[in-house]
Amino acid sequence: MNQQSYYGWWQRDDLCYRQGQLCFAGRPVQSLADQFGTPAFVYSAVRVKANLERLHGALNEAGWADRFSLCYAMKANRFAPLLTFLKQTGLCGIDACSPGEVEQAVSCGFLPTEISFTASSLSGRDLDLLARYEGLFMDCDSLHAIRSWGARKPGTKIGLRVNPAMGIGRAANDKLRYAGAITTKFGIYWEQFAEALAIAKAHDLRVTKIHFHTGCGYLTPQLEQLEAIVGHCLRFVAAADGVERVNIGGGLGVPHLASDEPLDLRQWAEVLYRQLAGRGLHLEIEPGDYLVKDAGLLLLEKTFVEQKQQTVFVGVDAGFNIAPEPAYYSLPFQPLPLRYDDRSPCAPVNVVGNINEALDVWYENALLPDLASHTHLALINSGAYSAAMASNHCLRGQFKEFLLF
Amino acid sequence: MNQQSYYGWWQRDDLCYRQGQLCFAGRPVQSLADQFGTPAFVYSAVRVKANLERLHGALNEAGWADRFSLCYAMKANRFAPLLTFLKQTGLCGIDACSPGEVEQAVSCGFLPTEISFTASSLSGRDLDLLARYEGLFMDCDSLHAIRSWGARKPGTKIGLRVNPAMGIGRAANDKLRYAGAITTKFGIYWEQFAEALAIAKAHDLRVTKIHFHTGCGYLTPQLEQLEAIVGHCLRFVAAADGVERVNIGGGLGVPHLASDEPLDLRQWAEVLYRQLAGRGLHLEIEPGDYLVKDAGLLLLEKTFVEQKQQTVFVGVDAGFNIAPEPAYYSLPFQPLPLRYDDRSPCAPVNVVGNINEALDVWYENALLPDLASHTHLALINSGAYSAAMASNHCLRGQFKEFLLF
Repeated sequence: MNQQSYYGWWQRDDLCYRQGQLCFAGRPVQSLADQFGTPAFVYSAVRVKANLERLHGALNEAGWADRFSLCYAMKANRFAPLLTFLKQTGLCGIDACSPGEVEQAVSCGFLPTEISFTASSLSGRDLDLLARYEGLFMDCDSLHAIRSWGARKPGTKIGLRVNPAMGIGRAANDKLRYAGAITTKFGIYWEQFAEALAIAKAHDLRVTKIHFHTGCGYLTPQLEQLEAIVGHCLRFVAAADGVERVNIGGGLGVPHLASDEPLDLRQWAEVLYRQLAGRGLHLEIEPGDYLVKDAGLLLLEKTFVEQKQQTVFVGVDAGFNIAPEPAYYSLPFQPLPLRYDDRSPCAPVNVVGNINEALDVWYENALLPDLASHTHLALINSGAYSAAMASNHCLRGQFKEFLLF
Repeated sequence: MNQQSYYGWWQRDDLCYRQGQLCFAGRPVQSLADQFGTPAFVYSAVRVKANLERLHGALNEAGWADRFSLCYAMKANRFAPLLTFLKQTGLCGIDACSPGEVEQAVSCGFLPTEISFTASSLSGRDLDLLARYEGLFMDCDSLHAIRSWGARKPGTKIGLRVNPAMGIGRAANDKLRYAGAITTKFGIYWEQFAEALAIAKAHDLRVTKIHFHTGCGYLTPQLEQLEAIVGHCLRFVAAADGVERVNIGGGLGVPHLASDEPLDLRQWAEVLYRQLAGRGLHLEIEPGDYLVKDAGLLLLEKTFVEQKQQTVFVGVDAGFNIAPEPAYYSLPFQPLPLRYDDRSPCAPVNVVGNINEALDVWYENALLPDLASHTHLALINSGAYSAAMASNHCLRGQFKEFLLF
């Protein structure tokens, strides 16, 4: 990657250099770092809302007007102020996957009727807790779940999470495969679908939704696969009487590198319209990454700059344990200097954290200027699956979070 | 793997089937699960001590008598009762890697003089905190660290963590490479070593220890590599006047599969003796995994058993987020039924957790009996890098820990 593309692709109105200062959510990032201390995640409420509105706009334009719902996949980021902000926009409900998430969503203001619940391997305790929330919509992902929910909530409507045995793949990311050639724990396969419907009927449950989630992080080049999968899933809809809704899960991707082509939302909405709209179905989407990932920055303090052999290392004051995507999923968070202009000569450096583990590398070959007079760095795209997946490994789990309006 | 080897390789006096009941630390595991609830980690103090004593025995037998120290790498498991137990054995000190770990070790009874500190990317705040602990032994892993420590603690003894640019590799585990062909953030390379010594001297620091850690999880087949690396590191010892100690880090492996050959401790101790003893050096070892990994069991409740396509899935009430090694490092924790005897016919199943992520698989093709009348499973080898690396992903981070005497 050259310097121009390193600094070009991610800049937008609310995240860009102004007079050489990195600005985010209308503030110079240096002043945020100085005020909050580090490590700190900062989230832009304005950006989250813009992401939500862009999704609404694309779906409306494609013709979906009023026949769709967005359920925020809160596992991406459950920070309480963020959840309450989302509730107040009135633009989305919640996708929850554990009793703890339901409780957290309700504690932040969502009604149980605004929550769509989809999970696997639920225990009896889990099911008892979930059954307390009147109006919570349950998507059953196994025969066992249908039986267990039916025993607790006969006479209610449910969804069935199905597995079309087809997945959306982004190469080099085996860890993010939900469906495809290998049988996974997720959903009900076609082979068991008739039995699933029979079990639902026997428990007086009405199957009104078909749910499938077949991959994540997809961008425009994967839309063809998405269309094939959606088409394939219609056989589940057709085989069940009374289906009113289709939930296609989340998975809308966000670019991590200059070379990633952003998801063309218009094409995406058209794919869904073409496959589903003619059937009178209500559409549900569960975006997580798409709403919050690029609305987050991770602010870190520089600890050292030092050459080892031929490589220059820049150390920062937190490691992969507080934001595991780069280390575990090979999804890089590009580091940015808080001051930069086109005349700053840059050279490649490896940005590394403070954990004694070989995988504790934030970014290889970051194109950064001379950092001698710099105190901090910011990592983009750290709004999702970062704080939410943080661990206290090496007792290095401390961080702060701030929602910026 | 066949049934005999699945059930054969890991059994030992304090972890085995007796009259068909899985017993651990002298108790039937079923009674532990019933009493404690799940998910729960149980640790055997007796096994930890046996592991410590086995290491002492092998080093003594090889001729190291009284010229070695063991420093437990507490990042493997920082459970407070376990640390206090280790203190009371009198058989080890502590290897710490963050100010938080130093504080935790001291809070559990260790003296600062019993702690060897090795970390990378230390911030000014970290160094100020560490400097408060009089007698803490600092291994500097960069020129920056030497300067920063020297500014705070002139006149003290230090170690230098060096990087021999050679690593111990276990194939298929790129994530655990600390040294080797690729330049890493760890340690001081030969190219910078003379400068490191000069900086130490300029700050009136005496370099009395050379530290290197070049891989982890090594077993008998890797001992030849270990010997080559130790030999190679002697040039650092020779180049620095006044080195009294060599610390070879940790990395002693524990078998995860029937096909893993256990580490031959006698050969291991002899390798070290051959390379180091003639030089009058005191030896330091930092075992983590080796002391606690096989002393831990993770107890889980069965949530469901269900066939999907041709695969049988067994669900349990916790996911990879509370013990990430299987998912992230491909180090499987073999699941065991709490009742079994040689006549139990077994079939392969995939044991999966309750997190909505594709990588949430505990074990593929576990050879388990019919679980219809079973309520729980136990996962072996979960004493290290499990609870210590747990996250609250999906708000599913709850678990308990128990030290059993």
